[in-house]
Amino acid sequence: MHVDELSTPALWADLDVLEFNLAAMATRLPGNRLRPHVKAHKTTALARLQYKSGHTGFTCATTREVLGLAQAGLGDDLLLANETVDVERLSAMARSEARVTVAVDSDATVDAAATAGIAECVIDIRVGFRCGCEVSEAGYLADRARKAGMAVRGVMGYEGHAMGVVDLDRRHELVEAAMERLLQAHDLVGGDLVTGGGTGTHAINTWVNEIQAGSYVLMDTAYSEQSDQPFKQGLFLQSTVVSVAEKFAVCDAGLKAQGMDHGNPGWAGGEILFCSDEHTNLVAESSLSVGDRVRLIPAHIDPTMAKHQTLHLVRNDEVVDRWEIDLRHW
Amino acid sequence: MHVDELSTPALWADLDVLEFNLAAMATRLPGNRLRPHVKAHKTTALARLQYKSGHTGFTCATTREVLGLAQAGLGDDLLLANETVDVERLSAMARSEARVTVAVDSDATVDAAATAGIAECVIDIRVGFRCGCEVSEAGYLADRARKAGMAVRGVMGYEGHAMGVVDLDRRHELVEAAMERLLQAHDLVGGDLVTGGGTGTHAINTWVNEIQAGSYVLMDTAYSEQSDQPFKQGLFLQSTVVSVAEKFAVCDAGLKAQGMDHGNPGWAGGEILFCSDEHTNLVAESSLSVGDRVRLIPAHIDPTMAKHQTLHLVRNDEVVDRWEIDLRHW
Repeated sequence: MHVDELSTPALWADLDVLEFNLAAMATRLPGNRLRPHVKAHKTTALARLQYKSGHTGFTCATTREVLGLAQAGLGDDLLLANETVDVERLSAMARSEARVTVAVDSDATVDAAATAGIAECVIDIRVGFRCGCEVSEAGYLADRARKAGMAVRGVMGYEGHAMGVVDLDRRHELVEAAMERLLQAHDLVGGDLVTGGGTGTHAINTWVNEIQAGSYVLMDTAYSEQSDQPFKQGLFLQSTVVSVAEKFAVCDAGLKAQGMDHGNPGWAGGEILFCSDEHTNLVAESSLSVGDRVRLIPAHIDPTMAKHQTLHLVRNDEVVDRWEIDLRHW
Repeated sequence: MHVDELSTPALWADLDVLEFNLAAMATRLPGNRLRPHVKAHKTTALARLQYKSGHTGFTCATTREVLGLAQAGLGDDLLLANETVDVERLSAMARSEARVTVAVDSDATVDAAATAGIAECVIDIRVGFRCGCEVSEAGYLADRARKAGMAVRGVMGYEGHAMGVVDLDRRHELVEAAMERLLQAHDLVGGDLVTGGGTGTHAINTWVNEIQAGSYVLMDTAYSEQSDQPFKQGLFLQSTVVSVAEKFAVCDAGLKAQGMDHGNPGWAGGEILFCSDEHTNLVAESSLSVGDRVRLIPAHIDPTMAKHQTLHLVRNDEVVDRWEIDLRHW
């Protein structure tokens, strides 16, 4: 089937780009230097390709992602990189076949994990505006976790505030300051793991020993402005023009079909005016007719993937496969 | 189960508020003066309550919504209020047991509907910044539809640009100007239906003979500033505090769990700083501890409902029922 025959809105990935990005990352950060973050794509089939590329450990944002990868046989080393005090969910992860490590940053999260039978944890350090304990608390929490019977594998810190910074020097400065804190905490905690980073900092964060990048596989439009990114845009939202006015056209992919937190989608054919629930209004450089296809480029892949049941795989404009986006919800 | 025992993030509706809103609307716009828009909630069980409240016709945004209501026996009179040229989807609707009417606004959309065997249509008139033909084209398109074998039931026009305007006089002005266009088109088209409007204009749009309101059942926060709204906020996103810093706390419901196009969620307990994928950072008026529950109020119910599998029904803080949000996707 040609990609233009898909019922719309339809999410698709360019398989050539996906393979290029996988290979580029496996060269830059081979093996367990990368712990791919599955929150970006929530798709077991894609995680399997990352595994085959040599990255056998994964970062997860939700229990659903952990359990899904475990059930798929991809549970060599799964890190839940978010805190939770949900003992039921923690217990389900503890009972799984997978090796599961969870992030903790407080008495309550340490105790919940230990109560649920979680065997391993990392101490999450606040190096930005996300979760994490202060550096000064890290040693105490590691002791508490060990006393509760858990192995402490090391420290985690996510420098999210640096991730999207375009200027390379400024980004480097921010990462360095954040990672100094993480290494101070590591001295207090011990363990092998110093884990953090993301697509935006994968090339400059040399302080951690594994990078938690996710977006690199299909790329957010924001990263395309960073000069040190080798990755290409690979995710497209196929839509159909359903109405044409004198000054604009309307296509049938709106804000229910894509994440809006990074702003409007990109489009090679002209200007995006705005998105409503099921529509995007646009001004084409050349004229559009009802029935024409429009390939939007979602600005943020993580929430966009989370809104769709199916990812279509396309090579040379032919739909060659369909993957269920099976790790959605919580 | 107490609402605070739900695994989070969890979406829930206050059943007292829901019943209040249903009754208030059934009093204001009884029977077929209201054609509830199911895009707001995408939930057959909720549509059934609207049906029992006397509103036996529905407005739909997607084929999935039309077919779902048809399968549920709620297909007395379903209007797909969006254009499509997808003959496969149009054919599926034509084959259903339901009475299906579709919006058309161009040669291509008329022809696609006729080809697919759709029996009835309305001519969609551009009265704002959405789809629709010019008034001057309406008579021609009605003729084309009738020649193609379809019954033309009337006209539709959605004054979306007026919907969120707080000032009542200004809102009234905008609706009046839009509806003058719609009535001009109705003179050219004929038929019984003059359909349009929404929650924001339900009380002042006296030009249409049916209102397509959807949000009224659980309410968007934006409408709460309109002085003529009798409806109450009834949708909540339950989250758990998972991390507490000196200056802010982090709860486990982020932008993957709610629509962000109307901005940050509301919260009675303090200030919302920002949402990330799985987290919301907030500053509480009184101190928060890890494990505390936080009830966010999603700013826009339509895309929020579309992100969840389940809507929990809560009365007096007890979870009394669970509804599948079964009309999601396309």
